[in-house]
Amino acid sequence: MKVGVLTSGGDSPGMNAAIRAVVRVGIYNGLEIVGILGGLQGILDRRFKEMDARSVANIIHRGGTILTTGRSREFRTEEGQKKAALILSDEGIDALIAIGGNGTMHALTKLQQFWSGHVIGLPGTIDNDVYGTDYSIGFDTAVNNAIDAVDKMRDTAQSFDRIFLVEVMGRESGSIALHVGIACGAEAILVPETPTDLRYIADRIVKGRRRGKGFVFIVVAEGDEAGNAVAISKKMSELVGENCRVSVLGYIQRGGNPTRQDRILATRLGAHAIRCVLDGKTGIMVGEIDGRLVETALEDTFTKVKEIDHRLLALLEPLSI
Amino acid sequence: MKVGVLTSGGDSPGMNAAIRAVVRVGIYNGLEIVGILGGLQGILDRRFKEMDARSVANIIHRGGTILTTGRSREFRTEEGQKKAALILSDEGIDALIAIGGNGTMHALTKLQQFWSGHVIGLPGTIDNDVYGTDYSIGFDTAVNNAIDAVDKMRDTAQSFDRIFLVEVMGRESGSIALHVGIACGAEAILVPETPTDLRYIADRIVKGRRRGKGFVFIVVAEGDEAGNAVAISKKMSELVGENCRVSVLGYIQRGGNPTRQDRILATRLGAHAIRCVLDGKTGIMVGEIDGRLVETALEDTFTKVKEIDHRLLALLEPLSI
Amino acid sequence: MKVGVLTSGGDSPGMNAAIRAVVRVGIYNGLEIVGILGGLQGILDRRFKEMDARSVANIIHRGGTILTTGRSREFRTEEGQKKAALILSDEGIDALIAIGGNGTMHALTKLQQFWSGHVIGLPGTIDNDVYGTDYSIGFDTAVNNAIDAVDKMRDTAQSFDRIFLVEVMGRESGSIALHVGIACGAEAILVPETPTDLRYIADRIVKGRRRGKGFVFIVVAEGDEAGNAVAISKKMSELVGENCRVSVLGYIQRGGNPTRQDRILATRLGAHAIRCVLDGKTGIMVGEIDGRLVETALEDTFTKVKEIDHRLLALLEPLSI
Amino acid sequence: MKVGVLTSGGDSPGMNAAIRAVVRVGIYNGLEIVGILGGLQGILDRRFKEMDARSVANIIHRGGTILTTGRSREFRTEEGQKKAALILSDEGIDALIAIGGNGTMHALTKLQQFWSGHVIGLPGTIDNDVYGTDYSIGFDTAVNNAIDAVDKMRDTAQSFDRIFLVEVMGRESGSIALHVGIACGAEAILVPETPTDLRYIADRIVKGRRRGKGFVFIVVAEGDEAGNAVAISKKMSELVGENCRVSVLGYIQRGGNPTRQDRILATRLGAHAIRCVLDGKTGIMVGEIDGRLVETALEDTFTKVKEIDHRLLALLEPLSI
Repeated sequence: MKVGVLTSGGDSPGMNAAIRAVVRVGIYNGLEIVGILGGLQGILDRRFKEMDARSVANIIHRGGTILTTGRSREFRTEEGQKKAALILSDEGIDALIAIGGNGTMHALTKLQQFWSGHVIGLPGTIDNDVYGTDYSIGFDTAVNNAIDAVDKMRDTAQSFDRIFLVEVMGRESGSIALHVGIACGAEAILVPETPTDLRYIADRIVKGRRRGKGFVFIVVAEGDEAGNAVAISKKMSELVGENCRVSVLGYIQRGGNPTRQDRILATRLGAHAIRCVLDGKTGIMVGEIDGRLVETALEDTFTKVKEIDHRLLALLEPLSI
Repeated sequence: MKVGVLTSGGDSPGMNAAIRAVVRVGIYNGLEIVGILGGLQGILDRRFKEMDARSVANIIHRGGTILTTGRSREFRTEEGQKKAALILSDEGIDALIAIGGNGTMHALTKLQQFWSGHVIGLPGTIDNDVYGTDYSIGFDTAVNNAIDAVDKMRDTAQSFDRIFLVEVMGRESGSIALHVGIACGAEAILVPETPTDLRYIADRIVKGRRRGKGFVFIVVAEGDEAGNAVAISKKMSELVGENCRVSVLGYIQRGGNPTRQDRILATRLGAHAIRCVLDGKTGIMVGEIDGRLVETALEDTFTKVKEIDHRLLALLEPLSI
Repeated sequence: MKVGVLTSGGDSPGMNAAIRAVVRVGIYNGLEIVGILGGLQGILDRRFKEMDARSVANIIHRGGTILTTGRSREFRTEEGQKKAALILSDEGIDALIAIGGNGTMHALTKLQQFWSGHVIGLPGTIDNDVYGTDYSIGFDTAVNNAIDAVDKMRDTAQSFDRIFLVEVMGRESGSIALHVGIACGAEAILVPETPTDLRYIADRIVKGRRRGKGFVFIVVAEGDEAGNAVAISKKMSELVGENCRVSVLGYIQRGGNPTRQDRILATRLGAHAIRCVLDGKTGIMVGEIDGRLVETALEDTFTKVKEIDHRLLALLEPLSI
Repeated sequence: MKVGVLTSGGDSPGMNAAIRAVVRVGIYNGLEIVGILGGLQGILDRRFKEMDARSVANIIHRGGTILTTGRSREFRTEEGQKKAALILSDEGIDALIAIGGNGTMHALTKLQQFWSGHVIGLPGTIDNDVYGTDYSIGFDTAVNNAIDAVDKMRDTAQSFDRIFLVEVMGRESGSIALHVGIACGAEAILVPETPTDLRYIADRIVKGRRRGKGFVFIVVAEGDEAGNAVAISKKMSELVGENCRVSVLGYIQRGGNPTRQDRILATRLGAHAIRCVLDGKTGIMVGEIDGRLVETALEDTFTKVKEIDHRLLALLEPLSI
């Protein structure tokens, strides 16, 4: 039995650990594993590469993805999907394991319409916005990267008693912002899932200052409806009456060696994807919920909404007195 | 209502985040919070310190514990426990929240025999060997510290194709070793919970070399029954027929800024401890199991055995082909 | 003899190590040391604080400055300078050691016009643009912070073969950009000291791609005459014909624990500042040139231009083939 | 003209940056560059590898050495040296650039007796014990790694007010110990270059405690004549009357991404080695002294003694009051 594996969409730390688990646990179970380079487009470009156990040596600690990734316009068309199905069959591939975000899960359902092979998704995105798993591969590393960056700003913030507005990733999800905000002792966390009241926040900051609060962090998800960090900063500076500094963390969130959680999660999910292939399952994404491996219909992963952790968000107010 | 908070036993990263949550959520809910310095001995020495919201500012990112910690011989005696009970009552303290490991939970049950105040424990130890929680505060940071150290050794290991034996913390638990080993792609993981067969491991290494494997990592918990790292290394060097290098990671595992997981976990547990106090609960430890806050009888936390994650350990063999 | 010490302007990692050296070496030599909080403004606000040996314990590894810093509008006026002189005399201060950048050195020369005390400057700025020292305190840490950030972007850059434009600090100096660029294997380094030819750079990138080059880094100092990173990126995207990603590193460059070089440099300079005070010197800045402690007239430090290292810049072309 | 490049002895961070500079600057100047794998033994085993500009892409940030390294028993014999000379001539190699420590420089002088090609050495060792350069490639990274480790121990040290004895690398040189000690605010620094008086140190610690000093760090070079860390710790515990904790940092010092200084130094030295080859120089090691590139006769590099920085050591006493 021949299994293809690819990474698609934005890269996320831990993808390599997932690839390694797929390859090694696959080979251990007698499967043949083929790496597909450059994401879904790699199928169309026939960029296939036989994987042996050594081909994934010394990669578990590396960010990014050894298979490289990409976004494919061609695959979004029905022609592209049909062509991919033909190529996969032509290559004798029986199952495809794809690691990526919502877009990737969506693409897999399209592929299924034209291809009879087994299709398994793994959630790999720093945004943590895929339904069907508590955490996606890369989220923990991304948040820790952001935390490190904010901790570095502390020295300056403290030396000047400043207000810092930190923009983190998350176009449609405030998950990174929420965790960074709680973990860094933010005064306010602006997420797209809840309405943002700048006046209320400014008021809290002013009152906090009166109680002796020094520097202040505000964490904003890039997709917050109040605007981008620079725009929010201007309004906030006016409302608070003091200059608000902006820092857009950007790409550093994606990089670096994956953390314990991401390596372990990726390893578990990759190993279980092989189990699913062996069991003849298809059309599912493998995630982890409440510490248990869970299989969710691909359809659900991008149509159902992954909620932000409201219990955690509710702690912000008492914690920032 | 007046609540005492202390940290006891070895320090672990995230303790400060827990203290901060106890203090702020406590004050937010109208409680008076008193910090006790130097662990349980601090009660006996009457080292009490009024905590306000500002007293825990800018500590969430710091390892160690601002309350300092210690081990108390006096508290282990019945006289010490009675004296502590008297002092707590004398100070008008209604509840005590103690952050520590098994020893601390045990001590709390002793205190309960002589003191009518509410007693709440929080699991704070890098060893992750407390029953009643999936993870204890500090474990994730310790494992990530060890992973960073192993990643640093990779360059040298790879430059020489060497065998490295890495000893991590864990006198009675292999939890750190297991996670470090899986996350670093170890060839073997030696934990006190399972019998160690050096001959079998050596045999696998020799066979792996023949299949083209380069450098090799073996991770050992300090409490493994096969002996300490130096002793195991000697035997392994003989069995494999090549020199095995040893690295004892030691104290660096305990230190450094806590990770996302430890800060969030500590914050949640600290906030819930206050909830328990408000609800009049006592004699429990607050933990998190399968993503849910769980209260476990103090007695159970140190008498019941926290199992190592056997599903994870079972992945070692296929992953290290 | 009573010596005041302050930090002024932007904070830079290593300032605490310098403060520690001033305090301890001063006390060791029988001097009385007074910390001045909040920079030059702190003199005007009479924010003085007696320093003993313990007051600088456990700070050598911390970024920022325990004395806090600030920019003072009042001090820029002659009235402010006269008032500061009066206050320093009134407090019985015989010498002032100020750690900061060009602006601080300039301010010290103003103070000298009205105050007879001894005035010693130490170069503390991440920009490395102070004449009279090879490196200023904080530069090495800032560059290493930027290098870490770029290394984190490598994984993503490599996964996508992208062009990344990284903006680093340096309004009037390309020193940070130069070192980050050479240390990260940049394709181009844009500094204010040399004319920037975007067409030439674009041409090299296109030719490099043809020779099989993968991802590309371009490092830009914020003060480069070609514009800010976003503007340059737009032009570059057009010229190269592919999308150019931007990352503005910002405040993370300032933070974090100081490196070996900054701690050692700061310690040496701080200790030598005390030596200068004991020797009755005044009106100088203490720096290190070619491994030797050098005293430069304050006037020179901000009127003479610190050259960028042209030998290093000349290596860029052969290194990026 | 054909130039061989190899790394020999222990690996050190920055070696890859040096290899990259040799390869690229060499090719840029019309030379042909051959990588030799596995150190000097690689010559004897004819492990040659043509290097092009792309072969050193994306390695400047990596620790270790892509050419791998090793120690060769055969090369120590006259037969081995003659054989190596023959093979180098047979391969048409005109010049050899070797990056390593004292042992490597010594080996190069042996090779010269039998080979007429040009021989250039570059100092690559974390120990910083090679005469003819202020810093060797790898030293700065190693010290920063050790500093990071000590900073991680601070939290625990501070939580308990403990005495920590930290052993760093350096069998014959106290250079690492000296820089780590000054940079971490050590109470004592034990180096092989100066006599160690444990009684005096213990006395200072006891007196420091009386003045309110909290935790204490002692840094020991592994080659100090007072014995290894465990032995010293026992004596110190007795003398001070309290338990002294030991941490042997070991291999983590060697690893990790090289720092700014090591990348820049390695790049400069590698580029200059090519310049020397082009100028027909031989029998020299290229180093950097007082900021200038310096060529030293190979013979001198291992026969003359590199002094420890006594001015820096002299600062320990005032700094640790």
